[in-house]
Amino acid sequence: MKKNAFYAQSGGVTSVINATAAALILESKKHKSKIDKVYAGKNGILGALNEELIDTSKESISAIKSLRSRPGGVFGSCRVKLKSLKENKKEYERLVEVFKAHNIGYFFYNGGNDSADTAFKVSQISKKLGYPINCIAIPKTVDNDLAVTDCCPGFGSAAKYIATSTLEASLDVASMSETSTKVFILEVMGRHAGWMAASSALARKDKNDPPHIILMPEVVFNQRKFLTKIKDTVKKYGYCVIVASEGVKNTKGKFLAESNTKDAFGHTQLGGVAPYLSSLINKKLKLKNHWAVSDYLQRSARHVASKTDLLHAEAVGIYAVRYAVKGMNGVMPVIVRNKKKNYSWKIEPAPLSKIANVEKKIPKSFITKDGFNINSKAINYLRPLIIGEVFPEFEEGIPKLSNLKLLLVPKRLKKWSA
Amino acid sequence: MKKNAFYAQSGGVTSVINATAAALILESKKHKSKIDKVYAGKNGILGALNEELIDTSKESISAIKSLRSRPGGVFGSCRVKLKSLKENKKEYERLVEVFKAHNIGYFFYNGGNDSADTAFKVSQISKKLGYPINCIAIPKTVDNDLAVTDCCPGFGSAAKYIATSTLEASLDVASMSETSTKVFILEVMGRHAGWMAASSALARKDKNDPPHIILMPEVVFNQRKFLTKIKDTVKKYGYCVIVASEGVKNTKGKFLAESNTKDAFGHTQLGGVAPYLSSLINKKLKLKNHWAVSDYLQRSARHVASKTDLLHAEAVGIYAVRYAVKGMNGVMPVIVRNKKKNYSWKIEPAPLSKIANVEKKIPKSFITKDGFNINSKAINYLRPLIIGEVFPEFEEGIPKLSNLKLLLVPKRLKKWSA
Repeated sequence: MKKNAFYAQSGGVTSVINATAAALILESKKHKSKIDKVYAGKNGILGALNEELIDTSKESISAIKSLRSRPGGVFGSCRVKLKSLKENKKEYERLVEVFKAHNIGYFFYNGGNDSADTAFKVSQISKKLGYPINCIAIPKTVDNDLAVTDCCPGFGSAAKYIATSTLEASLDVASMSETSTKVFILEVMGRHAGWMAASSALARKDKNDPPHIILMPEVVFNQRKFLTKIKDTVKKYGYCVIVASEGVKNTKGKFLAESNTKDAFGHTQLGGVAPYLSSLINKKLKLKNHWAVSDYLQRSARHVASKTDLLHAEAVGIYAVRYAVKGMNGVMPVIVRNKKKNYSWKIEPAPLSKIANVEKKIPKSFITKDGFNINSKAINYLRPLIIGEVFPEFEEGIPKLSNLKLLLVPKRLKKWSA
Repeated sequence: MKKNAFYAQSGGVTSVINATAAALILESKKHKSKIDKVYAGKNGILGALNEELIDTSKESISAIKSLRSRPGGVFGSCRVKLKSLKENKKEYERLVEVFKAHNIGYFFYNGGNDSADTAFKVSQISKKLGYPINCIAIPKTVDNDLAVTDCCPGFGSAAKYIATSTLEASLDVASMSETSTKVFILEVMGRHAGWMAASSALARKDKNDPPHIILMPEVVFNQRKFLTKIKDTVKKYGYCVIVASEGVKNTKGKFLAESNTKDAFGHTQLGGVAPYLSSLINKKLKLKNHWAVSDYLQRSARHVASKTDLLHAEAVGIYAVRYAVKGMNGVMPVIVRNKKKNYSWKIEPAPLSKIANVEKKIPKSFITKDGFNINSKAINYLRPLIIGEVFPEFEEGIPKLSNLKLLLVPKRLKKWSA
């Protein structure tokens, strides 16, 4: 009953998704009677459709271990969501065909909501197609928006990056504010959920410390209140630090970043919440301001990853294998927070039906009344997730990377076309 | 002959300027026969004009030592440039009046070109006004554009941040490029000199590694060549990483991203090359792209500071004191690279007349023929500056900060108004 396993990375990558991959591959080696080889999809699920399977058994153990400190998705990820069986039966038939051809009995899908949905569908459909597969979805997303799990691997490290950057940039602005920049805006990711923006609050030691304003997609943007709050903050502290989620919307339900504004030269202001807010502050308050957009930097900043997050990322990889070899199907290893004073956690299986396509936003009970901040309940939830440092090894002044062979398994089937 | 010293931070701060301050304060304590107390200007030179002198002798040694890992300017910095004696004699008279009132015989000015100019003027004028002061300018600037010195404290750490971030973000883009983002743009600081953009090349281990295109202010932007280079790069590698200096100009000598605001020195405030290029790529190449603007994050990222840079920052603080107590005036301790195979360096005094208002750009001999890259000569110059890690202590998941008292010396003079 020895079968191969297929592992794929899906959607936006994180600074610790490769740590999940490494943990999964190494754990698989402990279950030799059930799992033969682990094949990784080249560019995620596309690797299965295109029969481009990377044979991880060809990599040295040290190369696999080095993935623990390599950000990005080493096997390639993709933004492709499988349609329903009705809409595109061919795709599922192809997946099963490839799995059959390569004796694959385990499917590990490492991603977010969409990936949980895909894994759920494959878990149901493979049986119908006469080739049952053990499908396990593994959580990963900097957005922290998966249901059931207490938090999502990848988020804690992004949160630590954001808290650290907010702290550092705030010290910079504070030093300059007397004669120069009064307002600093940091734009972070989070299209629908404001977890990343909220994590900037972890930069505070005292409740009056920056950031002074946090804009989350869960709260409709109120321009008047926002400008008043800036004015009051600058008056009180001499400067104002704002952390804004890319997904903040106005009263009409439109993303601020999509609103068309023009600068002093009549040029249309280009994309981004931060430049939008900067322009607004210039126009309405005439306060000198600076802005930063961290974009991919925040989700790939392995150099300042959270140890707690890294341990979560490894644990879900390990438990995915354990669940699979136990014969579980259509589940996700989720992180469960123990109800004790000091933070501790464990991994448990949760059914994908409860996770697929559900989005977990910041609850209202975490947000302050004025909508510009999070409360101590939220801080208590967030703080443990950024605790601990796991600096990568540096070489020649930059993080050290090991080379992987990334050898493809010889193809056995005809070329696929969708 | 025991005198007090005045120390001020000037212009944009760095992640290691406080390390210079700490080294200077601690070194002063070794010269008790010459230096009594070190007063730090609250908000730079404004502290002298306003007679707001922070008494650093009131701080504990451990608080002073903690500055080694605190980014920003702990005493406050400012963007104020003194005019010439002709234009504003009153300002200089006030400085000398404050220095006299507080028995200040040493003036340490920690900044860039403008600050070297101010220190130079004060060194000349104080004599004329009958109260000679030992003026020492101390180098500091992430721009790395000071003359004479081999490099500038602050730059190496910004360079390490940029190289690390470019490496990490490139791994992210590479994983996603098959189905998503093809082009990533990172905007970095550097108004007239492209040292920071150039340092992104340190992310490479192999010459074909990202970044694929570096835009420096030293090279006039050629839109046609730029777009062709992107197309070719995406064809060859599947994605393209661009690092652009904020100060890139077009053929008409205009900044690609001009803003309508000017700072206190009359410099145009920049920001927005990345969104400009993004829009261009959308329009002309229709390639999905992402962009980041690191702004203050790059110059305050103490969490990933360069050890070499930190040692430079401390050394110039120490030598400033040594030069002052030797009676030197109108000099700057500069970093001199020894002409040996393995990197080593020493500190030497250089006359401010050779440094004030001179800007050191990237020499043509460092830039590749196509203008989009730097060569091995440049890499050999840059690499040693980012070597070594000095991670700060973390507490509760974020860099640990110590509290300082920042007590002001009682005023002895009437209020100043310019």
